[in-house]
Amino acid sequence: MHKRLTLSQIGEFGFIKSVRKLVTTDSSVVRGIGDDAAVIRLNQNMYLLLTADMLIEGVHFRRNMNPFDIGHKALACSISDIAAMGGEPKYAVISVGFPANLCVSYAKNLYKGIIDTAKKFKISLVGGDTNRSKNIIIDIALVGEVEKKSLVLRSKAKPNDIIFVTGFLGNSFKTGKHLKFTPRLNEARFLVRNYRVNSMIDISDGLVQDLGHILEESSAGAVIFEKAIPRDKITDLKNALYEGEDFELLFTVSKKEAQKLLKDALGKKIRFPIKPIGLITDKKEGFTIVCESGRENKVTVKGFRHF
Amino acid sequence: MHKRLTLSQIGEFGFIKSVRKLVTTDSSVVRGIGDDAAVIRLNQNMYLLLTADMLIEGVHFRRNMNPFDIGHKALACSISDIAAMGGEPKYAVISVGFPANLCVSYAKNLYKGIIDTAKKFKISLVGGDTNRSKNIIIDIALVGEVEKKSLVLRSKAKPNDIIFVTGFLGNSFKTGKHLKFTPRLNEARFLVRNYRVNSMIDISDGLVQDLGHILEESSAGAVIFEKAIPRDKITDLKNALYEGEDFELLFTVSKKEAQKLLKDALGKKIRFPIKPIGLITDKKEGFTIVCESGRENKVTVKGFRHF
Repeated sequence: MHKRLTLSQIGEFGFIKSVRKLVTTDSSVVRGIGDDAAVIRLNQNMYLLLTADMLIEGVHFRRNMNPFDIGHKALACSISDIAAMGGEPKYAVISVGFPANLCVSYAKNLYKGIIDTAKKFKISLVGGDTNRSKNIIIDIALVGEVEKKSLVLRSKAKPNDIIFVTGFLGNSFKTGKHLKFTPRLNEARFLVRNYRVNSMIDISDGLVQDLGHILEESSAGAVIFEKAIPRDKITDLKNALYEGEDFELLFTVSKKEAQKLLKDALGKKIRFPIKPIGLITDKKEGFTIVCESGRENKVTVKGFRHF
Repeated sequence: MHKRLTLSQIGEFGFIKSVRKLVTTDSSVVRGIGDDAAVIRLNQNMYLLLTADMLIEGVHFRRNMNPFDIGHKALACSISDIAAMGGEPKYAVISVGFPANLCVSYAKNLYKGIIDTAKKFKISLVGGDTNRSKNIIIDIALVGEVEKKSLVLRSKAKPNDIIFVTGFLGNSFKTGKHLKFTPRLNEARFLVRNYRVNSMIDISDGLVQDLGHILEESSAGAVIFEKAIPRDKITDLKNALYEGEDFELLFTVSKKEAQKLLKDALGKKIRFPIKPIGLITDKKEGFTIVCESGRENKVTVKGFRHF
């Protein structure tokens, strides 16, 4: 009946859902498909984390962009995923597809972007695969590790948790932040070491979409306040809510922990911007955005779906 | 001076060499770029292995091939890499690029090929990344593990080692073996558990090319005998020597170990075909192929270079 159904009709998330059902994992897998990175039991105190991110010319970047920045972004996306689990990145393998007529200097600068970022975040580049292709393709798989007590999942947001974001949202494409962003690894590590963080995700698909992922995995609802969304003056609200590729952290903590966080932010113990933007609720209350006018809008999560 | 030099001019291996120099790794990395998989210290008894393989439509397969087989191959290539290190595959992440107008049934069958092979080899699929692209792209990163005593590297071939191959070489494209091959995981595990294997690689670039990799990493030379190359009657010699994508194992053992192997093969303790094809020599003797006529040809390694 649905024989000719195409991917664009069911969307990325629809397709992943249908495939996820077919997959089985062994007992060492604490968390498989459905979070920023997979979580695997390593020993008594540590988990292994595993994630991959693919960038494709014409979809995620254009060839006339700076190849160093493209290389940086290819690794930084995966670092951001490991950060969102509360972990530290460790080892990466890089698969690339390059056109045969690509300049060696272009390809080398792209690798230099990867290598430079790897050094900054103490990641060892340990291998990969090099291929011919029509367009430039870069796929980086990153292995990380996290202490058991520091692991944070998407699925553990609890009703009455306060929702926070780091930094400022929106305009990532216009400002070039989507290429040059710093993954919030130090911020995430600071948070998980000093506070009890219940759930966390990195904002790659847009605030509304990514909060939607937390709500779905946690079977929860939420209220967020437009007034509270941190953005600069030139960024309009829609952009801050939906654009994506901010690569800031979105996380939830209990009310008690939130008070501690806000006190420490005031006291400069926390040296990066964090902002409470709303509240986790029961699933049955759905997902509500309170507009600047006070009007309440129910949200049906619809973000960028890639296909 | 070489500003406009293209990748096709320096080739895959030339490019990798130039990038490899720029990379630094931390002390937990036993082996980085330059083997079938990276080797990382895990604990007292075990190493972690990490590899990635990318398949691109129009380069490694055509869309009118069976998507189930394409999915199988995408994972089987990486399993073959882990096998060549003497290890067991454990966890995989799958990055794909799919055209928006691709049939859901096609994409699902491709995933079914991956999932089916994962189940056969007890691999947990734990995540990945799904993207829109013009052509189909599949990149699988595979994490494995190996007991310290079972690890085999490319770089440890020793003069007077006997060179062996498993199975039969050549005609992989004509017969469809390149798509449907069984990675030699059980064979490799049997070998490393029962014999002292000095060096090993999987034959993906062709016998001559892959033996060349062992010789380069081991700083050694070799003599191989055309007469000894295992191939079926319809496969010509050139094809068996150079074609690639056989995904058989090429390995070297001491003379004493070789006698044990050959005795056990005769006595049916080894239940898969193995064949001695030559001898490792000093580096200064180079790489020689002894023709069926008895004539000796010096080899300069030139295989498929992807760009």
